[in-house]
Amino acid sequence: MSHASTSALERRHQRIRENLTSGGFDALVVTSLPNVLYLTNFTGSSAIVVLTVDRLAFLTDFRYLTLMEQARGRDDACPTLELVRVEGSYDAALVEYLGSLACRRIGFEAVHLSVSRHAWLDRTLRQRDHAPELVATEGIVERARLTKDEYEIATLREAARRLSNVARGVFDEVRRGRSERDVALAIDARLHASGFSKPAFDTIVASGPNAALPHAHPGERTFTEGDLVVLDFGGIYDSYCVDLTRTVAVGKADQRAREVHAAVREAHDRAIAAVSPGRSRFDIDAAARETLGTHGLAEAFGHGTGHGLGIEVHEDPRITRRRPDVDTQDEAVASGMVFTIEPGAYLAGWGGVRIEDDVLVTADGAEVLTDVTTELLEI
Amino acid sequence: MSHASTSALERRHQRIRENLTSGGFDALVVTSLPNVLYLTNFTGSSAIVVLTVDRLAFLTDFRYLTLMEQARGRDDACPTLELVRVEGSYDAALVEYLGSLACRRIGFEAVHLSVSRHAWLDRTLRQRDHAPELVATEGIVERARLTKDEYEIATLREAARRLSNVARGVFDEVRRGRSERDVALAIDARLHASGFSKPAFDTIVASGPNAALPHAHPGERTFTEGDLVVLDFGGIYDSYCVDLTRTVAVGKADQRAREVHAAVREAHDRAIAAVSPGRSRFDIDAAARETLGTHGLAEAFGHGTGHGLGIEVHEDPRITRRRPDVDTQDEAVASGMVFTIEPGAYLAGWGGVRIEDDVLVTADGAEVLTDVTTELLEI
Repeated sequence: MSHASTSALERRHQRIRENLTSGGFDALVVTSLPNVLYLTNFTGSSAIVVLTVDRLAFLTDFRYLTLMEQARGRDDACPTLELVRVEGSYDAALVEYLGSLACRRIGFEAVHLSVSRHAWLDRTLRQRDHAPELVATEGIVERARLTKDEYEIATLREAARRLSNVARGVFDEVRRGRSERDVALAIDARLHASGFSKPAFDTIVASGPNAALPHAHPGERTFTEGDLVVLDFGGIYDSYCVDLTRTVAVGKADQRAREVHAAVREAHDRAIAAVSPGRSRFDIDAAARETLGTHGLAEAFGHGTGHGLGIEVHEDPRITRRRPDVDTQDEAVASGMVFTIEPGAYLAGWGGVRIEDDVLVTADGAEVLTDVTTELLEI
Repeated sequence: MSHASTSALERRHQRIRENLTSGGFDALVVTSLPNVLYLTNFTGSSAIVVLTVDRLAFLTDFRYLTLMEQARGRDDACPTLELVRVEGSYDAALVEYLGSLACRRIGFEAVHLSVSRHAWLDRTLRQRDHAPELVATEGIVERARLTKDEYEIATLREAARRLSNVARGVFDEVRRGRSERDVALAIDARLHASGFSKPAFDTIVASGPNAALPHAHPGERTFTEGDLVVLDFGGIYDSYCVDLTRTVAVGKADQRAREVHAAVREAHDRAIAAVSPGRSRFDIDAAARETLGTHGLAEAFGHGTGHGLGIEVHEDPRITRRRPDVDTQDEAVASGMVFTIEPGAYLAGWGGVRIEDDVLVTADGAEVLTDVTTELLEI
């Protein structure tokens, strides 16, 4: 397994520290595990990071101490990391550690801390002399994660290359008489064999009318002549997620299937053509949505056009419709962002089509990281 | 896939409603997905339930509306469910729905709502006339989930039977020259083949010195003569999680390996013998911990003795040491609870042993749901 280098981590810390300083914070408590991984290369399931302008404390329990100690001195070790051993409750250890710092204003991640944990931390800190103030922050680390660094781009590119290979192999699995569940298991086996540590989400194989449910569970239904089959799968490779969807026909597709597929494909192509640095994410969504509208399929497309990819399989930026009351300003995509483009059309009782690729915003447009034909394959 | 019956769901709602009434709540907002599943049989990834004394609103988006409509009238349909379609933001839809109720005191799940979402909901509700009050609650649904009903016990029993079959097959996979990763993939394939929808957590195969890390990732290390190998895996069957660990020897185990294995096995047996209704969960932990202590392995056992099993793979009750400042009262286990018993001993540089079974508390003791020899197998 490869990791970001020590110097790449250092640059990430630097970006966060600049935000801390400009926001008047003495420290940031990072409770989101994807954010912890981004800052430290830690891939375990329990840790808290406290980042100050010149320190990085890493709180974890005995299960992970050996792992972290082994990383010391390697070229992917987290710089300036101080290990703090948690015995018992993480939050009690956090209060203890924060008490040892001379901090007045401590940011916490309001999206990644429950009301219950916050109430306990706040109450317990207040009982101490010179109690620091806990201040809600949102998206400090996530904003840094929005644009991928060199290591992340290389990892996502390699992951997408492997996922494309998986996809090309998977098409041969779709045959009359096979079940959705059989094919989903075959996809998962191919993901493992291609070096993915695990699927990025539950693999979707939805055939015939089931394809009208964008998040169908693969079931016992077997494929029959003329079915459209939505194959949507992703994998985690060196902690980074990629995601791909193709819709194929079992045998000969009928006229309606060809039309819907062609409309979704056109929406997919137009959305990708709309990607360039500085372009609003709402415009990219509109490019797909309006195309489907011209084919009478506006109502059939109920989800967003895409989502960011990285340490999480759904992260920012969201390529969606603008919600009038919430999204008050345009948000431009920028070079280094990676997200899916995945328009679809779903018709209850009939079925559905979705086509999904992963794109990287470049200096002057988009690089499509996944590389598999988008033509309607009749298998 | 089987589900709890409509009448089982009704009884669950009834228990929660009694708690709402006695707590003076007009409604409970359920944002925890495992809790939503418990109350409605919904297995998707996005929904909010609002339970009042006589209504159950189910907020979801278009992806799941068809699924929920299809369930109507079936013998596992959620009783009195009102579907509320979410367009855009879930929390905006929630505020809208809560506004339509004549409620004054609304409980929310403080462990399952972030500071950020709570702040938005609270602020937005306050802008309305006759704004209801949002009140933090903890564990209302989780307390009901602590003791399993008939359907849950039958499901966990069947899941544990299947997992035991998987375990017996897995022992043959452990051979000199195979890697941890190979065996982990073989375990996952056997889980799928045995009807589990997926592993309940990342399968652990840790050999030789790696076994000293209780949460090691399976790697490229190949097994050599004399290795102890910790095999820890679980599966989700009809939405319920089971979990099993055995430690086996590759070829002949040496004297030290036999001693440590025997000590852990004794701790495992004594903890199970300590299980009976009314017994404190701290006592059950102490039975394992003190046994390891008599063998000089107290320091080598850094985690708790067990965790509850159900819709989540780690849920209450926690069979752990009493933490002096937090756990102020004894908590007795009760008939119908299901949890793991999994003592272990980990010696840095040397390796480790863990033995884990799943037990159901019965009217007069414990039923061990998993059924695989705990002897040290030399393979």
